[in-house]
Amino acid sequence: MPRYRLLIEYDGTGYAGWQRQDGPASVQGAIEAAIKGFSGEEVGIRGAGRTDTGVHARGQVAHVDLARDWPVETVRNAINAHLGMARETVAVLEAEKVADDFDARFSATKRHYLYRYICRPAPLVLERDRAWWLARPLDAQAMHDAAQALVGRHDFTTFRSVHCQSRSPVKTLDRLDVSVNADGTIELRASAQSFLHNQIRSFAGTLKLVGQGKWSRADVETALQARDRSACGAVAPPGGLYFMQVDY
Amino acid sequence: MPRYRLLIEYDGTGYAGWQRQDGPASVQGAIEAAIKGFSGEEVGIRGAGRTDTGVHARGQVAHVDLARDWPVETVRNAINAHLGMARETVAVLEAEKVADDFDARFSATKRHYLYRYICRPAPLVLERDRAWWLARPLDAQAMHDAAQALVGRHDFTTFRSVHCQSRSPVKTLDRLDVSVNADGTIELRASAQSFLHNQIRSFAGTLKLVGQGKWSRADVETALQARDRSACGAVAPPGGLYFMQVDY
Repeated sequence: MPRYRLLIEYDGTGYAGWQRQDGPASVQGAIEAAIKGFSGEEVGIRGAGRTDTGVHARGQVAHVDLARDWPVETVRNAINAHLGMARETVAVLEAEKVADDFDARFSATKRHYLYRYICRPAPLVLERDRAWWLARPLDAQAMHDAAQALVGRHDFTTFRSVHCQSRSPVKTLDRLDVSVNADGTIELRASAQSFLHNQIRSFAGTLKLVGQGKWSRADVETALQARDRSACGAVAPPGGLYFMQVDY
Repeated sequence: MPRYRLLIEYDGTGYAGWQRQDGPASVQGAIEAAIKGFSGEEVGIRGAGRTDTGVHARGQVAHVDLARDWPVETVRNAINAHLGMARETVAVLEAEKVADDFDARFSATKRHYLYRYICRPAPLVLERDRAWWLARPLDAQAMHDAAQALVGRHDFTTFRSVHCQSRSPVKTLDRLDVSVNADGTIELRASAQSFLHNQIRSFAGTLKLVGQGKWSRADVETALQARDRSACGAVAPPGGLYFMQVDY
């Protein structure tokens, strides 16, 4: 059976996250239903990352095995046609044929996420559910500086959900950069081979305190060293988070 | 009565355009209801431009006279609070006190619009209703070159709706530029003191034909000179259009 790699975009607002569940709508379930719609097959797809309720993706990756050897454009266009008919906010950007040993989750060498903050007096409209709205400015330079205290190999117990299923809280964070783009949006970019559950939104919520001047870089270091979930700042809202890219 | 100038953003998807109507939801009606909610006054606001159903704004301007001399932050925040309670996709970015002879519509010296095209095989998800989706690439350079044939003072009968209420079809178009931004979105930027009804979407639809190689610059010139609505390309969909800025 040929294996296909799918590059996937979604607006996560209407979904209870990536993972298929009994009941609530999921991105995985939407794609599996669309595949059934075009090929008639009941397949299970595996994604590179399990995004939470309301989290978006511009570059989620999944793999699927299909019975027939379809052209990649057919796979992409047919899944998109069925997603469109079902009014899903999910699209397959690319389909590609891959070797049988490619695994979207286990072959991944690096994952890249973006978290967006928009600071302005007026609530968000065109960016509603697409960024974290803050009525007052944040100090992006202070956030970037404090973020560097988190880069490297650490026990990230402070920054993971109590529901996290990862065996170890020790991870290597390769990048945590804060910058301001041309329209004033503050962008937090995080890269690692893998992340713990809620890790980036925990970083984003903690760094917001730094941007507000409530926490210093030293406070972030203390929180990391505490290895205690209760030392973390409030978890940032999901609409600001985008799963951007997976490297293999 | 103090006069306030409001700078307004909206996602136009859910509205039958700017102008208040009996029945369908309008942006103007939403703001007037929010003003009533906070000040108790039944006011009529005047906008700089009457955008159509589904057209967005990042810089619409309106003026309103209020009985009391409120601080500008109170006007902005109170209108936004009432818009938020009503789940409107409208926000006041700034409120400012202006002289009694300021008129959002008649004092305007220039209006700036943006039209966005996204060309890619997959349907739009995060940009759904926010850009014109085209499955194949457009030649932005050819579009820009042809657009220059429209700049200047012309009879734009070809490019205005048959419902246009403007007394004269003669207008001066100051700018019509096509460029490609960093993420590949094609942006059409139009500036003039005033526009005819459907003029920019008529330009956008016609220039799309040029981008597809179906029309040449000479075809655009011929269409302009025809002064005949039926010579125009199909009007572009509203979701790609943004009212960006008004100069006074």
